[in-house]
Amino acid sequence: MTQSSQINRRFVLAKRPQGMPTSQDIKLEEAPVPQPAAGQLLLRTLYLSLDPYMRGRMDDAESYSAPLAIGDVIGAGTVCRVEKSEHADYKAGDLVLAYTGWQDYALSDGSDVQKLDPNMQHLSYALGLLGMPGFTGYMGLTDIGQPKVGETVVVAAASGAVGSVVGQVAKLLGAKVVGIAGGADKCRYVTETLKFDACIDHKAPDFAEQLKKACSKGIDVYFENVGGAVFDAVLPLLNTKARIPVCGVISQYNGMNSAFEQDRLPLLMGTILKKRLRVQGFIISQDYSDSYPQFFKQMSQWLAEGKIQFREDIVDGLEHSVEAFRGLLSGKNFGKLIVKVAS
Amino acid sequence: MTQSSQINRRFVLAKRPQGMPTSQDIKLEEAPVPQPAAGQLLLRTLYLSLDPYMRGRMDDAESYSAPLAIGDVIGAGTVCRVEKSEHADYKAGDLVLAYTGWQDYALSDGSDVQKLDPNMQHLSYALGLLGMPGFTGYMGLTDIGQPKVGETVVVAAASGAVGSVVGQVAKLLGAKVVGIAGGADKCRYVTETLKFDACIDHKAPDFAEQLKKACSKGIDVYFENVGGAVFDAVLPLLNTKARIPVCGVISQYNGMNSAFEQDRLPLLMGTILKKRLRVQGFIISQDYSDSYPQFFKQMSQWLAEGKIQFREDIVDGLEHSVEAFRGLLSGKNFGKLIVKVAS
Repeated sequence: MTQSSQINRRFVLAKRPQGMPTSQDIKLEEAPVPQPAAGQLLLRTLYLSLDPYMRGRMDDAESYSAPLAIGDVIGAGTVCRVEKSEHADYKAGDLVLAYTGWQDYALSDGSDVQKLDPNMQHLSYALGLLGMPGFTGYMGLTDIGQPKVGETVVVAAASGAVGSVVGQVAKLLGAKVVGIAGGADKCRYVTETLKFDACIDHKAPDFAEQLKKACSKGIDVYFENVGGAVFDAVLPLLNTKARIPVCGVISQYNGMNSAFEQDRLPLLMGTILKKRLRVQGFIISQDYSDSYPQFFKQMSQWLAEGKIQFREDIVDGLEHSVEAFRGLLSGKNFGKLIVKVAS
Repeated sequence: MTQSSQINRRFVLAKRPQGMPTSQDIKLEEAPVPQPAAGQLLLRTLYLSLDPYMRGRMDDAESYSAPLAIGDVIGAGTVCRVEKSEHADYKAGDLVLAYTGWQDYALSDGSDVQKLDPNMQHLSYALGLLGMPGFTGYMGLTDIGQPKVGETVVVAAASGAVGSVVGQVAKLLGAKVVGIAGGADKCRYVTETLKFDACIDHKAPDFAEQLKKACSKGIDVYFENVGGAVFDAVLPLLNTKARIPVCGVISQYNGMNSAFEQDRLPLLMGTILKKRLRVQGFIISQDYSDSYPQFFKQMSQWLAEGKIQFREDIVDGLEHSVEAFRGLLSGKNFGKLIVKVAS
């Protein structure tokens, strides 16, 4: 199935995935393109964002965003063009940031979209550096992490959408930054292009030792966005009064994949006490929406000054969304993963 | 051995305890009363404070206060009278707050003591309500817990020195307060005298269920000062954006006494993320020393207005310190445990 102006292709949740989602769980459907009623807009998806949190919404479990129902279109942030407008404030051709999900077309009453500057150089940055992932990295680091000059900041998934922003902002604030990434190519990018002080390959057999060596003065801020074995290696290196903003990949916290047989909850609570740690979870959309203008202004300025690099991994064609999403969950993307749906 | 003006009785760490300390671990010694040199004071202990953190210092392990060496006098906050002074700023008869430990006499150069108001009504309150435990409860609750009007605050060891302050201050700030204590007498005291909204007996077989019922709107602030089974019951009841100040009994966090066979560290981190919790350890002496005057003024005012109750459990005689300390670690004291050493 390719793009059409009569048919709306859309991916829906057919059944709840066990582990990695497959094309049996997320199915491609076709439907007629809907027509806007009075007060409505017809939106056409140009770009859609693929992010790890989407996996959590496919489970029928309490989480920070509501679970999808069976049959729902998979939700996603999108950049859309207004195709038809029956709404006084919008005209055909306007560009908007929306949350219309994995499909070609959607209707909106205008309350859930935000106009984008048509002169914006990288339209898809609205889903990355200047959107939810960049905002997440910036606020978690500055509001909870609060790195001071000379402190050591560690961030995993360092070449990714959130991690790359965390590390570059921490450098701009004067911290020493150690990234963690999967494989030599990503690590080289992190140190050479993003200018982190070091980057450790989590696939290396002596990963924990290398991390310890790179963090010779311990860790003052650990931006938690992956969990699992990385956190296990970080925990003993944390300094007194360290801060841990937690925005991690929830699918790794299902209690099924710990390498430890004993209960380490008492160890973690004891470490929080002894080292006087601050460990704090946050969800960008719910905790910081008032701070978005401040973030946007600061990040746009850094971008204009060439102080921030941002890499995208753009997949062409809505039909490749499931495959791209599976790659994201196993770390195959290199940079912010975006699906280009239409030009 | 009884009190004497020639002999200094002192308890020293003879060997490191395994579990509950015994009189083989903490031994009573005699030594001559030391004589002050120029610039020194001779202090005589009137009251000494017994607190749970002392157990941690008996282990040879990294903790928030340095471990005692074998042969050291057991450290403790004390209220002392100046017996002899060779120091210009002090005269015999002055009353001071000190940290001279489990002994009758000690020398000081004046740098580690603080003069007390001789008109103070309850001298021993300098070790309790107006001292380290009261300050701990007040700062942990107000600075990290930040209870809002109508929120639910839970505190364990609710009849104790820290817990009783946490709960009463939370009530004064407009929160609903649920205490946890051991046994019917303590629970009655907590609701009838301290005026908490409810108090649950942690010895009850249906403790977790009772706690859930008492916290019908979930828990917004859990002041962690015990750990173990209480935390296990609290964890599933925490509301989104709950705050957990951690000043807990470190001896319960040795990883040896979990009732769970699987590793719950991923569960805890997942809960921190999903519920956007703030979990923060603190050590009153290191994190908040600048705030003591503000605390002292506020608490003294509440005390004068009859808005705060404080119960002491006073043991008469230095020689009973080990027995009293063992009772503290097993919850036998009822109120702030103090040893009266001299009149």
